[in-house]
Amino acid sequence: MVISPFHKARGDYQPRFPSSLTDLSQLRGATAVAEAHPWSVDPAAKSDLHAHFPHTFRQVDQGILELTQAQGTSQASERPLRVGVLLSGGPAPGGHNVIWGLHDALTASRRPFELVGFLGGAGGLLNNRSRLLTHEDLVDYRNTGGFDLLGTGRTKIETSEQCAKAREVSARHELDALVIIGGDDSNTNAARLAEYFKASGAKTAIIGVPKTIDGDLKNRFIETTFGFDSAVRLYSELISNIARDALSGRKYYHFIRLMGRAASHITLECALQTQPTITLIAEEVAARQLTLAEVVEQLATVIKARASQGRDYGIILVPEGLIEFIPEMRSLIQELNHLLAEHKDYISTLSGFTEQSEYVHRKLTRDASYTFSSLPLDIQRQLLMDRDPHGNVALSRVETEKLLIELVQSHLKEEKVAGRYSGSFGYQHHFLGYEGRCIGPSNFDADYAYSLGRTAAALAAVGANGYMAVMRDLASPPEHWRPGGVPLLAMMTFERRHGQAVPVLRKGLVELGGRAFGYFSEHRDAWAESDSFRFTGPIQYFGPSYLTDRVPLSLALERGLSKETHW
Amino acid sequence: MVISPFHKARGDYQPRFPSSLTDLSQLRGATAVAEAHPWSVDPAAKSDLHAHFPHTFRQVDQGILELTQAQGTSQASERPLRVGVLLSGGPAPGGHNVIWGLHDALTASRRPFELVGFLGGAGGLLNNRSRLLTHEDLVDYRNTGGFDLLGTGRTKIETSEQCAKAREVSARHELDALVIIGGDDSNTNAARLAEYFKASGAKTAIIGVPKTIDGDLKNRFIETTFGFDSAVRLYSELISNIARDALSGRKYYHFIRLMGRAASHITLECALQTQPTITLIAEEVAARQLTLAEVVEQLATVIKARASQGRDYGIILVPEGLIEFIPEMRSLIQELNHLLAEHKDYISTLSGFTEQSEYVHRKLTRDASYTFSSLPLDIQRQLLMDRDPHGNVALSRVETEKLLIELVQSHLKEEKVAGRYSGSFGYQHHFLGYEGRCIGPSNFDADYAYSLGRTAAALAAVGANGYMAVMRDLASPPEHWRPGGVPLLAMMTFERRHGQAVPVLRKGLVELGGRAFGYFSEHRDAWAESDSFRFTGPIQYFGPSYLTDRVPLSLALERGLSKETHW
Repeated sequence: MVISPFHKARGDYQPRFPSSLTDLSQLRGATAVAEAHPWSVDPAAKSDLHAHFPHTFRQVDQGILELTQAQGTSQASERPLRVGVLLSGGPAPGGHNVIWGLHDALTASRRPFELVGFLGGAGGLLNNRSRLLTHEDLVDYRNTGGFDLLGTGRTKIETSEQCAKAREVSARHELDALVIIGGDDSNTNAARLAEYFKASGAKTAIIGVPKTIDGDLKNRFIETTFGFDSAVRLYSELISNIARDALSGRKYYHFIRLMGRAASHITLECALQTQPTITLIAEEVAARQLTLAEVVEQLATVIKARASQGRDYGIILVPEGLIEFIPEMRSLIQELNHLLAEHKDYISTLSGFTEQSEYVHRKLTRDASYTFSSLPLDIQRQLLMDRDPHGNVALSRVETEKLLIELVQSHLKEEKVAGRYSGSFGYQHHFLGYEGRCIGPSNFDADYAYSLGRTAAALAAVGANGYMAVMRDLASPPEHWRPGGVPLLAMMTFERRHGQAVPVLRKGLVELGGRAFGYFSEHRDAWAESDSFRFTGPIQYFGPSYLTDRVPLSLALERGLSKETHW
Repeated sequence: MVISPFHKARGDYQPRFPSSLTDLSQLRGATAVAEAHPWSVDPAAKSDLHAHFPHTFRQVDQGILELTQAQGTSQASERPLRVGVLLSGGPAPGGHNVIWGLHDALTASRRPFELVGFLGGAGGLLNNRSRLLTHEDLVDYRNTGGFDLLGTGRTKIETSEQCAKAREVSARHELDALVIIGGDDSNTNAARLAEYFKASGAKTAIIGVPKTIDGDLKNRFIETTFGFDSAVRLYSELISNIARDALSGRKYYHFIRLMGRAASHITLECALQTQPTITLIAEEVAARQLTLAEVVEQLATVIKARASQGRDYGIILVPEGLIEFIPEMRSLIQELNHLLAEHKDYISTLSGFTEQSEYVHRKLTRDASYTFSSLPLDIQRQLLMDRDPHGNVALSRVETEKLLIELVQSHLKEEKVAGRYSGSFGYQHHFLGYEGRCIGPSNFDADYAYSLGRTAAALAAVGANGYMAVMRDLASPPEHWRPGGVPLLAMMTFERRHGQAVPVLRKGLVELGGRAFGYFSEHRDAWAESDSFRFTGPIQYFGPSYLTDRVPLSLALERGLSKETHW
């Protein structure tokens, strides 16, 4: 690694954090208060959760741990506080700041401490690959993107053997707390680990930190995850650059697929930021039970209307998860996955696409077979031939933007022959994903992640096993944010997986009744009709505060803030 | 268009410009000086150029017009100065600033004037689609990317009918000058138009302004084009974000194709900025006469060496034009283009890829047929089935990064079976192009483009027909830049096209003997062996000058500046 002038200058930014986290005597052993609050994100799951988590369930009723300064008591301790930390899953801007905040809070506690970083995600914990983290180790990682300080991984701690191994390694390091920075899966597993540790008398408290650029780890307690703001601001910048291009050359529709399989938060925020011609929101497609043909017709209708005004160009945003939200496609994919698993050995004897395709058609239901054959050949090939590591259809490799282009193109050809369209359909396709996962955090994410790190340290000091560090009132200035700990179980629900109901952290989808979607749906017709592109520019880290200290527009809308202040 | 806070704040930036352009009494009719200088970029072309451009040839011997303040004389004139302007070809950051600079200089001249913008490129001139440009029209376009103020187009003014039409429209507007902002093709045509106008006694002076993000309009007189800096800084940011991602997850090689078909300047500058694992420079591949198999082996050698250190990840930069620089591929493409043109009607009767492919194989030479069949099927299909508007192989749609991935993957499979490779080869592919063409200009480009606009106004005032606005000493602060006008003919050479030698502006390729390439080739082995990624961050428009006022690293190196100051 070579330090560029930007890298160096940005490292000097001191993140802001809630004033309630200033007095770090808390870390000498604060007691926390329970806030009165409705039970959880899914009250109906209460008794089943109790059954799955008998040892940690009680804390759900105790409520949120509010870390208020007044509550800090001064139980001085000379016993070192030992904290482990790991990064899990896809990187998100701000991950290094969580660790930095954790380290700063531990340092400021004036109590001896050790911070142990596990390398390469949960795998590093299971294999006991770790390093001690000092101030010097962190200097070059302050306010940087990426998870490269420790690396990350996708290993999941699920089996009881893995839990036992995690316990053994935690004990070997004499950890008082283990901070797991991850998404919904990692935090689901953190809840299981917390239960296992409690049940088996381990002294290590498991603490989660909510990370994901996708924004789908979102609920009553989590207003947004760290990383989301920075990633969407990069994507929005790129989208608005492309919109300028479309407007300059006036000859292409740009189909832009955006990361986010489980939910369309990124796409919605980018739409609010850039005001594109058409935006597909997967949750809406699912709610309206649209078929692929109907989605295509929707696009074609706008394109035809614009052609009649002489506008043969535009910007179309497509969430990565779209096809899984189209009911007929979802069924097809489920059938295919089932087939590929059940007849794996036989299918592997079939040479090439044509033979496999014939075989699969014979096995699919009539509906699925019809859906499959209505897809362009390239997409059929991708669905059938690319497999993910679990042997399933590799959906992340399916180029949905190209699928839509092919289908729209054929549809418009027919319309042209029928005399209902006289424009010319030029296109370009883009996928925005990896470019944004490791951008340096915006001030918002730098502050938020750093504050979460300080919060995690406070939770570690009070031994808050099975809690997630959260920060509320995020649309206020950081000094007024309200840090706290929420029982992981309070965010859980049950999902059916392989025929069984399993407890998981509930995914936060785009709420079609929410204010952010509401604003979008009120304005989208105007955006489609004439060009209302909004050019956002790259993230500015220096300069006037109204540029550097912005919050996501969807967050501002959801928190009821006025458009004028936050637009 | 909606004005975002960033858009508004950035509009307030006042571009810097050479102090010699401050006193705009020049515009009242400056005389310019000839600078002693060697004849042109291609002295051997002298007599042929003379034959093609009998009326404008003489100016080449008169040399460069240096616009020095001392030379400004005060021939006051109350006759309005009428200037036309058009944007041509792909957009480049700074285009709007050229027009703004032009307008500001005309305003400051205290002489009445009209600035006429032609819409949609040269097509707007031929069809006389235009608008008068006032200060108010420009306010929201200051320091913005894109060519959307006027639009752009790819229409070329080549035939004498087109020249006559251009003359007629220019006369109707009583233009003293027509400023053509474009790349090498547009400026080649500007030279022809200047000759035509001179020959036919038109009073309009044709003035070129060098634009292109590709950086290939580069020679002794043009140190770089406007737009290059901003585009490469965006690409470099994205590459370094992806490098962080590679380093965090440690499981993918990212193959990143970069815009730039005719030359690899973008790729080279991005390599200097980000220090990736492997960078292919098309000019070097051509000079070393590498085959595709050799390029693949080169990549595989690095990948194998890294695998033995446990590094199964990295960043590989691929210039868009690569395959056209590989001799065997170049021949294949030429043969294919020839075949597709000659047997167009017959080929169109053949249904689908298989039949066409069989036919083509029978017609190709043995070498070309061998090369063709060694390509992955997807690429064969792209080469054969996608055509550009001229009926040629649609090279811009060929996904070279995927081609390399497929070939490297098969090669590594063989190596694994042979026991010479034990790593795992995961990959992702990216194409960076449209995202960068319309980013808001960096300070360097904002200043440079604005200064070129002011220079073009000065050239218009002296009626410098057939000149290009240039700016030299670009690595110095803008106040010290040396503005001037260079005869377009001094930049021309002859190229064989369709069997004929035609005069064209010489393409500036990456010089393998130059300092920028030299720095790269000295360091690339170290970059391949260990990770030396450099994270550049997004363009900063506010903040310390050492961040906001940077120049391209290749320019700094070529101008002999020290690494310390400009790194």
